[in-house]
Amino acid sequence: MSEEIPKKGWGGVVVNEASKDFYIDVRNDLPVPEPADDELLVRLNCTGLCMSDIHNMMNDWVQPKMSEFGVRCTGHEGAGVVVKLGKKVSSAWKVGDRVGIKPLLDVCHNCESCWNGRENYCSNANYTGLMSPGTYQQYLVSPAIYTTRIPDEVPDEVAGPIMCSASTMHRALIESGLKPGAWVVFPGGGGGVGVQGIQLARAMGMRPIAIDGGKNKEKLCLSMGAEKFVDFKEVKDVPAAVIEAADGVGAHGVVVTAWQAYKDVMKFIGTRKGSRIMVIALPAAGEVLLGSEPSTWVFNNLHVIGSLVGTMQDAAACLDYAKRGLLKPISEVRGRGQWAESVQQLRRGEVAGRIVIDFNRE
Amino acid sequence: MSEEIPKKGWGGVVVNEASKDFYIDVRNDLPVPEPADDELLVRLNCTGLCMSDIHNMMNDWVQPKMSEFGVRCTGHEGAGVVVKLGKKVSSAWKVGDRVGIKPLLDVCHNCESCWNGRENYCSNANYTGLMSPGTYQQYLVSPAIYTTRIPDEVPDEVAGPIMCSASTMHRALIESGLKPGAWVVFPGGGGGVGVQGIQLARAMGMRPIAIDGGKNKEKLCLSMGAEKFVDFKEVKDVPAAVIEAADGVGAHGVVVTAWQAYKDVMKFIGTRKGSRIMVIALPAAGEVLLGSEPSTWVFNNLHVIGSLVGTMQDAAACLDYAKRGLLKPISEVRGRGQWAESVQQLRRGEVAGRIVIDFNRE
Amino acid sequence: MSEEIPKKGWGGVVVNEASKDFYIDVRNDLPVPEPADDELLVRLNCTGLCMSDIHNMMNDWVQPKMSEFGVRCTGHEGAGVVVKLGKKVSSAWKVGDRVGIKPLLDVCHNCESCWNGRENYCSNANYTGLMSPGTYQQYLVSPAIYTTRIPDEVPDEVAGPIMCSASTMHRALIESGLKPGAWVVFPGGGGGVGVQGIQLARAMGMRPIAIDGGKNKEKLCLSMGAEKFVDFKEVKDVPAAVIEAADGVGAHGVVVTAWQAYKDVMKFIGTRKGSRIMVIALPAAGEVLLGSEPSTWVFNNLHVIGSLVGTMQDAAACLDYAKRGLLKPISEVRGRGQWAESVQQLRRGEVAGRIVIDFNRE
Amino acid sequence: MSEEIPKKGWGGVVVNEASKDFYIDVRNDLPVPEPADDELLVRLNCTGLCMSDIHNMMNDWVQPKMSEFGVRCTGHEGAGVVVKLGKKVSSAWKVGDRVGIKPLLDVCHNCESCWNGRENYCSNANYTGLMSPGTYQQYLVSPAIYTTRIPDEVPDEVAGPIMCSASTMHRALIESGLKPGAWVVFPGGGGGVGVQGIQLARAMGMRPIAIDGGKNKEKLCLSMGAEKFVDFKEVKDVPAAVIEAADGVGAHGVVVTAWQAYKDVMKFIGTRKGSRIMVIALPAAGEVLLGSEPSTWVFNNLHVIGSLVGTMQDAAACLDYAKRGLLKPISEVRGRGQWAESVQQLRRGEVAGRIVIDFNRE
Repeated sequence: MSEEIPKKGWGGVVVNEASKDFYIDVRNDLPVPEPADDELLVRLNCTGLCMSDIHNMMNDWVQPKMSEFGVRCTGHEGAGVVVKLGKKVSSAWKVGDRVGIKPLLDVCHNCESCWNGRENYCSNANYTGLMSPGTYQQYLVSPAIYTTRIPDEVPDEVAGPIMCSASTMHRALIESGLKPGAWVVFPGGGGGVGVQGIQLARAMGMRPIAIDGGKNKEKLCLSMGAEKFVDFKEVKDVPAAVIEAADGVGAHGVVVTAWQAYKDVMKFIGTRKGSRIMVIALPAAGEVLLGSEPSTWVFNNLHVIGSLVGTMQDAAACLDYAKRGLLKPISEVRGRGQWAESVQQLRRGEVAGRIVIDFNRE
Repeated sequence: MSEEIPKKGWGGVVVNEASKDFYIDVRNDLPVPEPADDELLVRLNCTGLCMSDIHNMMNDWVQPKMSEFGVRCTGHEGAGVVVKLGKKVSSAWKVGDRVGIKPLLDVCHNCESCWNGRENYCSNANYTGLMSPGTYQQYLVSPAIYTTRIPDEVPDEVAGPIMCSASTMHRALIESGLKPGAWVVFPGGGGGVGVQGIQLARAMGMRPIAIDGGKNKEKLCLSMGAEKFVDFKEVKDVPAAVIEAADGVGAHGVVVTAWQAYKDVMKFIGTRKGSRIMVIALPAAGEVLLGSEPSTWVFNNLHVIGSLVGTMQDAAACLDYAKRGLLKPISEVRGRGQWAESVQQLRRGEVAGRIVIDFNRE
Repeated sequence: MSEEIPKKGWGGVVVNEASKDFYIDVRNDLPVPEPADDELLVRLNCTGLCMSDIHNMMNDWVQPKMSEFGVRCTGHEGAGVVVKLGKKVSSAWKVGDRVGIKPLLDVCHNCESCWNGRENYCSNANYTGLMSPGTYQQYLVSPAIYTTRIPDEVPDEVAGPIMCSASTMHRALIESGLKPGAWVVFPGGGGGVGVQGIQLARAMGMRPIAIDGGKNKEKLCLSMGAEKFVDFKEVKDVPAAVIEAADGVGAHGVVVTAWQAYKDVMKFIGTRKGSRIMVIALPAAGEVLLGSEPSTWVFNNLHVIGSLVGTMQDAAACLDYAKRGLLKPISEVRGRGQWAESVQQLRRGEVAGRIVIDFNRE
Repeated sequence: MSEEIPKKGWGGVVVNEASKDFYIDVRNDLPVPEPADDELLVRLNCTGLCMSDIHNMMNDWVQPKMSEFGVRCTGHEGAGVVVKLGKKVSSAWKVGDRVGIKPLLDVCHNCESCWNGRENYCSNANYTGLMSPGTYQQYLVSPAIYTTRIPDEVPDEVAGPIMCSASTMHRALIESGLKPGAWVVFPGGGGGVGVQGIQLARAMGMRPIAIDGGKNKEKLCLSMGAEKFVDFKEVKDVPAAVIEAADGVGAHGVVVTAWQAYKDVMKFIGTRKGSRIMVIALPAAGEVLLGSEPSTWVFNNLHVIGSLVGTMQDAAACLDYAKRGLLKPISEVRGRGQWAESVQQLRRGEVAGRIVIDFNRE
């Protein structure tokens, strides 16, 4: 099962010449790291491209910057195969096992958040492609106890994006406490993240309402399992249309992954009691949002809840849904030759769904 | 056990001569109502006075006005005794049973909220002293299936205020999902409602932090079970003091019953993950509060949750705590002769704790 | 909308001549009751026939006997229409509203169980067709606050059996705490109750495994949403087959509605941790079952949980699933002329699925 | 802060000459292990003695035997100090940190149980003093990510026994879902484990009822926070006395740590609905217990739930209660010279409470 490990591997190195002018230099001379005692050496077959990659490479987060950590390759949703085991790695692992790399490369494992399966809030987390080399690189090391297995039935190009977008959506839906039968609204439901949310909500017995613009988006959302579609290009009063769709009462839940939705989101609950608004999208720093009269909370038993990326459980649950065919392939797969240009397209906002780069294709 | 029922009873009738100038006319000529088939006729021994009474009598709520319903006596926290049973009342009731009257006189019993013990959100609730005659009146009728029993061990003057303030606090603490060992903050903890919250949180195994001003308040809060006290008159940076008190990390929960607290409340959570901010206080209509950057929610897994009055369960739970001595008598008891003036004092903001009017004392 | 109410109506009166020899006398001379102030007069269009009816009519329960209550007509799953309102019935009701009658005709509404939506455990419940006239009778009265509304989209013959079997299954699934993605086993899954469980589990995102015998049952179970089928006529080791079906690990949940299953049921969990065994079936009194070595509980974090009939919430939830087409029509509808004989067939164990008697058909 | 590390350390080596005749050889020549990259070297100050130690040393468990793993020293509740760090240990650790050793020395960290804070059910757990050297030995190594910190305020002799008995009790109480105000019964409440349960239940707002025999036990239980005491030496009908103590209704919960209690335990719930019986005690293999008529489950909504040792969370929570003074010192501390004899006393059933051996005292 073991394969020959070269000295060098492929990678997309960020070149950041002026403040906000950067490009990806795709080359085949990145050193292959050696796994520590408790690590796996992974050869990735592909990586998804995510908007956060652009922020990382442009170093424009308020929070820690990729350049400060000396990281050359970003990326945080990869799928590949184990090619070498650290000396103390459990016998549960073997060379040839298929694995996924998540936004969280590792956590501290010994804090209140880590103890109870909420390691997405670990204060000492190590973020992939930001604090450590990311999935824009063919070979990387990953701690054996925090690496996710990919089931045989799920291809790499499906597994990759699941590591980030689907897992984050799954966490938000679990955290919401919403029950089967609940109407849950996805503003921007036709986007790469929204579509994962729609599919997951459906698989969990909820009733998704997608908001997006245009006939293509409508078709996509309905085919992914949305029960209702609200077209913001057609409808004058979006909140009224959402309430109408939700039995004329209002939404049980809203998952906000598009920050433009914050403005209207409190209106979606109508007169429903006990609704959950899940806060995920992060607009530019400094924007105060989600304010309302306290009576909105009090009289409606409203819950507004923040949620951040997915955990090991979420990744595993999503891969299980994918194995059952409930999370469909939604990405466009391209070869290495399109990598650099694809990143620029993403940066310019020209990418509709999800692009996955296949490292084994030119 | 049965007693003679007179034709007329005592009451404090609101006289509302000009827009905002009103007084209570205490008189002994209010007709004693006849219980319908499913109702109890109750003779109250006392009523608590609550700030909401003033709002009701001044008709200054945005929501339904007492005058529109033709109600002459407000009040919503009373304790008394059953003196007559409607014809179809269950044999579980008998004349002489001690009962309490809550802010919710009745609910519809047949809606989604009512079905699962969340009848405080029933859209067809009948509010005592607003839509129906209140506890400022000696005799009133109450539906047998929605009347609360008072245990022998709890005196009327303790039971009365429990119907409103303690029950509301209990609901908020239950709704919060906070666990034993959690640091929970009560801004205005030395007030009539705050003190109930402190005692309940303690009884439920939580660790109360009270915020209030002055040595007397400190003494009161600590004697009621607060583990820490933050004196806003002494401390410059109240949020910093709260965080310091909560293990230097931040509060697990905050119960906002004083609307002035909304300004600072998001800071109390520090870097704690998964905190609950319970929204109860209702400031004047039109004030937009609780806004924040979405990142405050996302990175801290913050939950902001609205909660409204108590349910049958909450009233029963609080009376059980009182029976066990865990909710202490905190009210000042006065006779009928002080009633009218006490209402004016309450209106002028001159009342510190809770006043209970004993109908059987002159 | 109002219709003429006759003096007499149809009914199937039990005639119990010798100890265990009885028949149904179908006649058209049963007096139409008058609704009390808080009651609805309902004209039923149909009733389902349930095995409990036979037990009631034979008076062979250990618990209270139908004959002791002077009840002549049993039955507890009916669907019909409101034809008259009691004087104090809420304006939310009107003549012509469609309603269902459940096994619980009424509860006390003022006990710990009733307060929190667990009224199926009310100690003062009034059981339909046992303590009060049942749905084997065309006209009966039902308390307005405890009568279930039927949505327009759900026909009477579907709504009737939902009142009992589907609601009971829904309660068990909710009570189990099982999550979407969980493998849940239905021994006797091809029966009238099992089929409702399969459909509900599927609608709630779970993965049903049905156990039953024969190709017809297999076809039925799979068409109703079972993901796997274990044929006890074909398979030697049923527990092993169940474990194999459940990822080779074991079931997350088992719902025991056929008492013959108790013998094997603990083996279905395999090495799964935290499984739920839901105890519903009631074998003859005196049979001690479900015993096991304590280590079975301890090492597997096993939960064995009892569950009893459905609540208002469950009936409403099931009707909503039916409205969405997720609970399909599964009953055979017959006219009044076949009623007496159908009861005998049920008694002799000759009925496979569910029979519904249409009162409006000869 | 660093201290000199000797070549050899103290230990109590089991000598197992004939099948069931063994003794502890206390000697000072046990090699001090070297920590691996991710391990801490710990110098223990003390160990608690637990009945499981005897079973381990006699190799009489059905499950894996200590001798098969080549382990010479048992023990699984120790407290000490970090004296050396493995090369890759996080900077969160430093020499001099105080730590506790639990029954679970390590878990796999990458299975469904581990992912969600239920690592007590990890199928690849490494049990201290059974599969790996135990706390009957002065120096041992422990994985940094699975070692528990001891707060400054908690002395070693309190911390040691908390690692096992209190943590197990805490897990059972959390797993039970019992709420503040619930009556929870501890059969054998005056024993070493029972007393921890009483204190924890009290700290969590529950109402403990202890069952044990004699005035001394009564005094102990009440001083530890039991609200009621049932003396099985005085009372004829123990279940009746328990029900009487629990408001005349029945217990909300029972925690079975003494296997003799299984016989009666189902009777303790009386007519209470929704009770939790927590199964912890492990009687000799082959004993089938806890059987009952299914109706006991069904009509009472009974939950029978198995629970196994504590997790990282439980240990931390218990240490926090100890820090607050809510878990009092309950052990008798003895020096090394009494170690061998204390083990024999424990084996002969002559030990009432908990014995802790202080390694630093002769």
